[in-house]
Order: sequence, then structure tokens, then C-alpha cells
Amino acid sequence: MTPHVPFTLAEGPEEPIFLRLARTIVRDVRRGRLRPGDELPGSRPLAASLGVHRNTVLAAYRELAAEGWIETSAARGTFITRKLPEPATRRLARETAPRPGIAERPAFDLGDAPPPWEPTLPPEGSAIALYGGVPDVGLLPHDALARAYRRALRSSGGRLLSYGDPRGEANLRAALARLLASVRGLPATADDVLVTRGSQMALDLVARTLLAPGDVVAVEALGYRPAWNALAATGARLVPVRVDADGLVVEDLARLLHEGPVRAVYVTPHHQYPTTVLLAPGRRIELLRLARERRFAVIEDDYDHEFHYDGRPVLPLASADTAGSVIYVGTLSKVLAPGLRIGFVVAPRRLAERLVHARTFVDRQGDQVVERAVAELASDGELERHVRRARRVYEGRRDVFVEALRGLFGEALSFTLPPGGMALWARVHGAPVEALAEAAEREGVLVHTARRFTFEGRAPGFLRLGFASHPDKTLREGVRRLHRAYRAVSTPGPW
Amino acid sequence: MTPHVPFTLAEGPEEPIFLRLARTIVRDVRRGRLRPGDELPGSRPLAASLGVHRNTVLAAYRELAAEGWIETSAARGTFITRKLPEPATRRLARETAPRPGIAERPAFDLGDAPPPWEPTLPPEGSAIALYGGVPDVGLLPHDALARAYRRALRSSGGRLLSYGDPRGEANLRAALARLLASVRGLPATADDVLVTRGSQMALDLVARTLLAPGDVVAVEALGYRPAWNALAATGARLVPVRVDADGLVVEDLARLLHEGPVRAVYVTPHHQYPTTVLLAPGRRIELLRLARERRFAVIEDDYDHEFHYDGRPVLPLASADTAGSVIYVGTLSKVLAPGLRIGFVVAPRRLAERLVHARTFVDRQGDQVVERAVAELASDGELERHVRRARRVYEGRRDVFVEALRGLFGEALSFTLPPGGMALWARVHGAPVEALAEAAEREGVLVHTARRFTFEGRAPGFLRLGFASHPDKTLREGVRRLHRAYRAVSTPGPW
Repeated sequence: MTPHVPFTLAEGPEEPIFLRLARTIVRDVRRGRLRPGDELPGSRPLAASLGVHRNTVLAAYRELAAEGWIETSAARGTFITRKLPEPATRRLARETAPRPGIAERPAFDLGDAPPPWEPTLPPEGSAIALYGGVPDVGLLPHDALARAYRRALRSSGGRLLSYGDPRGEANLRAALARLLASVRGLPATADDVLVTRGSQMALDLVARTLLAPGDVVAVEALGYRPAWNALAATGARLVPVRVDADGLVVEDLARLLHEGPVRAVYVTPHHQYPTTVLLAPGRRIELLRLARERRFAVIEDDYDHEFHYDGRPVLPLASADTAGSVIYVGTLSKVLAPGLRIGFVVAPRRLAERLVHARTFVDRQGDQVVERAVAELASDGELERHVRRARRVYEGRRDVFVEALRGLFGEALSFTLPPGGMALWARVHGAPVEALAEAAEREGVLVHTARRFTFEGRAPGFLRLGFASHPDKTLREGVRRLHRAYRAVSTPGPW
Repeated sequence: MTPHVPFTLAEGPEEPIFLRLARTIVRDVRRGRLRPGDELPGSRPLAASLGVHRNTVLAAYRELAAEGWIETSAARGTFITRKLPEPATRRLARETAPRPGIAERPAFDLGDAPPPWEPTLPPEGSAIALYGGVPDVGLLPHDALARAYRRALRSSGGRLLSYGDPRGEANLRAALARLLASVRGLPATADDVLVTRGSQMALDLVARTLLAPGDVVAVEALGYRPAWNALAATGARLVPVRVDADGLVVEDLARLLHEGPVRAVYVTPHHQYPTTVLLAPGRRIELLRLARERRFAVIEDDYDHEFHYDGRPVLPLASADTAGSVIYVGTLSKVLAPGLRIGFVVAPRRLAERLVHARTFVDRQGDQVVERAVAELASDGELERHVRRARRVYEGRRDVFVEALRGLFGEALSFTLPPGGMALWARVHGAPVEALAEAAEREGVLVHTARRFTFEGRAPGFLRLGFASHPDKTLREGVRRLHRAYRAVSTPGPW
């Protein structure tokens, strides 16, 4: 029996008629109006009834045959394939309404929700974000970067656009190795450097490679939550260790080690995140000794090595690690720009091989064009010039910011002049910091309170205030707004 | 007692003398020659004994004080800080040799080695790589891409170089949503699209978000190993399901479901990887029905949607999924270039939120500059023009390649003309494929054998032969070399 083929073609006026006819037939199969084994009309009568050329119908049938919906036999005619499961098409008939959009809930179980975490985004409108750790991308040599990108794109006929080495583009690995050896005291070769998508991917690769469910990882009780998230995603158990004015309290870590094995310690020894303090030399020595003796890994996040204003940057733990305890993680996010997503990791070689392996299934490889462009900035001196310039600018901004804060807040805000970095860690007196942050938002200035950085959710009365990304005038205006907010929520002093 | 300070400064002739002096003292502390509480000589006598200006010594002392190694008191003098743990410095004395390089073995345990996996790299020298899935990046509109990159870099004062939305740059999400809605039948909005680093990161995020140790995931028995690695890294148990000329054998999957719950199925329905076959319509309907009823997720990897030569591309499973079973993964790696690392995922919204959360700790965000540049290529029509051109070129290369293979190999090689994609799946008669691949390498042509794609390591006698990345002449030369290799290892026919 020749079935009824609807004369109303499926919508889609921009498409050729043969395609609309093919779609109409598929829709009818899905709805169950056409069933497996049903015969379709011959091309001539169908063309006549639709008022189209016969070739149009033949093209639709060819299309359907190529997709496997119909079978044609010269002797017998054209049929809906019998390979369609009959009951299924009937069941599908219930779901013929066009899809309104992507499903809200999945048809499978989702499991428990992860802890909430809001990444820092640039503010909208005229609010001034005094967030820490955000460099001023306006200082970048944009033209040099664009030129370097163009050259990288064209080099070897665009070969950098194809598949490449998961460890990163060779020139950039060599440039980073030179940087590490000459400035940071790490005797790395190009083969020791794995380029990653920012330090975040380096941390994630280390976590996945090193940690198993139940492993204990010591973290700074005030610290960097995205790193904790990566570490915890492996099922490892994170244990906070106190931080004081000399950085991680290694004595407390030693006590933790009495309770049982620790697999790794995640630490920011240079400008401790978020408090900006330096890990004291004695603690550095003791941490490395404990790591060697108790066989745990030290994951050292040296996230803004270059921006040290008072004296030279302190060399990383990794430079003093002769035993193979330290996994060194760095980034160009602060030095250059977060958006370029260039981080790197140097680890004992047996571990490094595994990190490369993990990288192949996380994202296969980096963006070699951008990596080559950055390598060029490094080798022609642009990077170093930029760092010198940015360091001067940031140091000036720090001083302007500190002067403005001291001028308006006086003793209501106490902090130590940070030795480097892009933020300061300030205690607020006479006002609850959460209320202050809310009032500040109403005044048009955005700040992060300590709660964002505390492992256990207990929030001491601190703010982290970033100064690097704004010119002096904006910093002063930000401080004025913050002070207006402070007046609105503070109780009278002295404290 | 004033201790002896060595007159031989630490090496580093490029450094200022004050830094060399500071380093010398730190080295001696590490070696144990200077101990906590030891007094340092006054600046005048030390300067005199070293033959340097007194300011140089004072600068070194300031540096050491800033780093926390020494303490100075106007009344008493300058001392090595007592905060250094004394026994530690003595122990450190044993390790005073300069570091020869990065440690080979870590000081912590590494655990079991992962299964080996070698990513495809471009060959060195004059070898012709007939690898599948590698597009010809020479066809790309390099100038348009460089211009778009430059514009993106400069837009809003380089704001795209800073922190941004972890879901991806807004214009690209909108462009991909338009593409999905207009060409692939997915009613996605920009908010439904999560841009990732190639499809690999999309798969990894899905795996980490959805899977727990012990979960069963069905995969194609011939399939894509990097995806398996990402899925298996979660501790999930992968179970292979047979693939035949109609794609994944859904009947076998149904049998697997009788044995117990399945959490997810990973499938390449369009041009099955590596065999290039289309998943038959009946199986598509049945797979979606099973997913809905048995509440498993279908991870659909639509890795080269656009490159379909015979008829139009078949719409993805996701376009027929009204229940919320399908997680749709796509990529511009084939369409544009693997090196740009632009992939994307569209999933039921509750899951999509979790994927974004996971993304924040994998790599924080994508490269917004590159994303914006690609969005521009999409919205000004460059992307579509490129796809049309590349499709014509690849189809021509497929035909040249097939003709060359048939001409030289005759019946020694059997394959079906692939309906699309960049490779064909060919059975070799009369020669063992591993020996053939080795002989081919000696002849200067590189091919992948089925072993690379088989879940269980059993290797049927197939090769996957890619044709997209080479011009006709190179393809013909590659086939000639492959045939010479064949003659060297084959036994006489017929088979």
C-alpha cells in the first residue's frame, strides 16, 4: 500500500525543496506516521502531487538513502527501512513537539552538587574592582604581541596550528628554562618544562597525577580556593595548616605529620596568597627537611615571582631542593596577562612524564601559536622590558594606594606594607568586613573579604585589596568610595 | 665572636657584587658554616677586607634582612637569624654541591604507571604521515585570522587579556549557538554553550563531573583512546561494545544493560571513529530510547560534522533528544585547526552548570582573544567560506586517494568509500598490518594500524588512512611508498 505523504513540507524556507521533503519524511518516521517497511510513493506521482520536478523527489530519496532511512530496489520500489525498531517509532510518536530548547534537567542522575565558587570577573559598569592579583593588561606591548602572533601564525605554513607537542611549543619551553635557571635558581632544561594553561592547569594535572581518594594534603588555612578545588576533586582530604606573619606555620605541619602520613603540601612561599607574607628562611629549610624525611611532595605555587619591590625576589623552595621533593608551579598570568593562559610546571622527571601523559587527555596540547608568540617576546627582550616597567608602575601604585588608605582610614585599617605582589592584606577595625564589602558595592567599589580565602569558612576581619590594575586616580577614588562605605557601617573608635 | 666570612664570593659575575656577597652568606648558612645567632662582621671591616665600598656591604645586608636571613640591631650588630632551625642547617651541610639539574626520581612515591599512549605528532623530515583526522591548516585564511586576532587583542584596551567568563567569550558562544541551531538541529542559546580547549577538554570535564570510581561506561570497541583515557581517569570501568558497518551495535549495549546499570555511553555516531561508518537510524532511535528508560547519559562526540561529502551531514543524536539524555561535544579542530583548541559542549542545563564549575579549576578560562577572533571569522562568513572550500578540497583528495589505492593495491586492500571525514578504514589482505606499518615507515610513509584504536588490544587487519592534509601529489607518492612496503611484506594472493 502506498502511504499518504503529507503535502505540507516541513518548514525551513531557506532550504532547497528536496531537503525539506527529506526532512518531512524523517519527521513522519519519528512521529510514527511512516513505519518500517512502509512503501513510499514513486517519484513521478509524488512530484506531480507536490508540483515539483521529478529530480527534486529523486534527490530527496537519494538523501534519505544516504542517511539510511529508506531502501530502494529498482524492481520493488522505495521503502522505509525495516532496520528501524518498530515499537520505538511508536513510542517516539509521543514526542513530536519541536524541541523548545536544551533540557533543564538531565534524564540521568546528577549526584551531589559541588561547593559553590564564583570566579572573579571584571565588573560591569563604573564599579572599581579592588581585587587582588589582577595585572594591568593595558601596560602590555599589544603591538609587539600582535606582530609576534602574526609571525607565529605564518611560520612553516601554519604548522603551529596543527597537532603538536603536549609539553608545549619548543621555543617557549626553552625560554622558560632560561628564565628559571637565570633568575629563579632552578637548573631546568627545556625538557624539564611543561607548559600549561595557566598555573591552574598545572595544579590540576599535579593533583590528578599524584593524589588518590583519602590522601591527606596540607594546605594553607588562608589560601587559594581554586587550587583547593583542584586538589579536592581527586577525593583527597585537605587539612588546613595555620599561616602567620612568617607564612605557613611549619611547626603545625610537623604536628600534623605525627598523626599520619601526608601526601602533599600546597604552599605559596613567595607572597603568601592572600596575606602577601614571605615564608621565613628557617621554615623553608624545615619544610624541605620534613618533605625529604617524610616523603611528601611540596607543591610550590610561585604565582607572582617577578613583582617584588623591596630587595630582590626570594628564590623559590625548588631552587634549594636537591632531593626531588618540590613540584614547582609558575605562571605568566601576572607577569604578562591572565588571558594568555600560560603557566608551567617543573617536577622530578619521573613525575613530569606522568604530568605530560595526563595533559594529553585533559586538553591534548596548548595553543602553540600563542606560545610561540610569547616565546618571541621573551627572546627579543620585550618580556623583560615589560616586567621592569610593570614592576615600577605597580610599586608606584602600591605607594599611592597605601598613602590614600592611611590618609583616609588612619588607624581604622592596619596592614604591613606588602613586600611585593599586587594586593595588600588589611585588618579592618570598628566595622564588620562583610557589611563593609556590601556597603562598598553600593558605593561602587568591589573588594574581597577574608571569607573568600579561609579554608574553614571562618572569616577574620580582613580585606584583600588589590592595587595593580588601576591608575593612581582610580585608586584614590576607590579608596574614597571604600571610606564612605566604612563610615556608613562603622562604630566609633578607637579600637 | 665575629665569624670568618669567606673572601671568595659566590660565582655569578653578571650580578652586582652586593648580590654575590648576599648569596655567599646564604650559601654558607645552608652549608652550616654560618649558624643561627652567629654574628656577621661590621660593614666597615668586611668592606675593607673585600676591597669593596661599604655601601655594597650595606646593600647586601639590607637584601639579607629583607629575605629574613639576618637580623640587625643598631646596638648589638648583625646576626644570622635564630629562627633558622639549627639541626636542619647542619643536615643541609651534606648537600652543598650545586644542583646538577632537576631530580630524576621524586623523593615521594609515584604509584603505578598509567597505560602508555603516544599522541600523534607531525613527522620529522620527509616522511608522509597518512594519519586520519588531521586537517590541512594550509587552507586556513591566515591573514583574516591574524587580522581578527589583532582586533580582538586591541578591543576594549586589551580587556580580553584579563580574567573572563569561564564559559567562553560571549561572541563565540553566540556564534556557536547559531551554528548549532541552524545547521545541526540543536536549539541551543549562547548560554547553553560551554567553550572548551578542543573536544578533549569537553570530554574530560564531562568525565570528571559525571563519573565516579566503579561506574560502568560503555565505549565503542573500536574507538578514540584519548577519550577513553579521560573517562578511565575517573576510576570508571570502561566496557567495550562492538562496532559494525552500522556503527555501535546497540543490541549488544542492550544486553550489557541486562547485567547492571550503565552510567554513560560514549559514542561517535556521525563518522564513527575510526571506522567512518554512520550510526544507522534505527540504532539512533533505540539508543535514545534505552538512554531515557535506563537513565544513562549519551556522550555524543560529533568531531567532524561538516565534512560529509555524499548528501548532507546526518543530524546529531542531540537534535532528536527531547528527554535530556545527550551530552553533545563538538570541536572546530577539524573545521578550522587543531592548534586553535576550540571545542564546545552542550548539555542539560543542570549538568552544564557543573561543567562550568569543573572548568574553573581545570584551567580557569579559555583564551578569550583567540575565541573572539574565531567568533569574528564565524560572523563575517569567513568560517563558512573556509568550510565550503575545505569540503571541496577534501572530497577531491578522498577521490584521488581512493583511485591511487585501488590502482596500485587492487584487491589487496578493501574498504568502503567513506561518506565523509578525513580518513578511510581499510582491510589489508595478504600481509600482517603491523609488519606493513613498520615497512611503510622504512619507505617514508606513516600509517596507524587498528591496534591503536582497539579497546582490548586485539588488532584486526585494518589500517586507518588519512587523506585530508596532503595535496594530490603527496597522496599519490604516499600510496606508492605504502605499496612498496606492501610488496616487501606480503604473501602472494589471491586471498
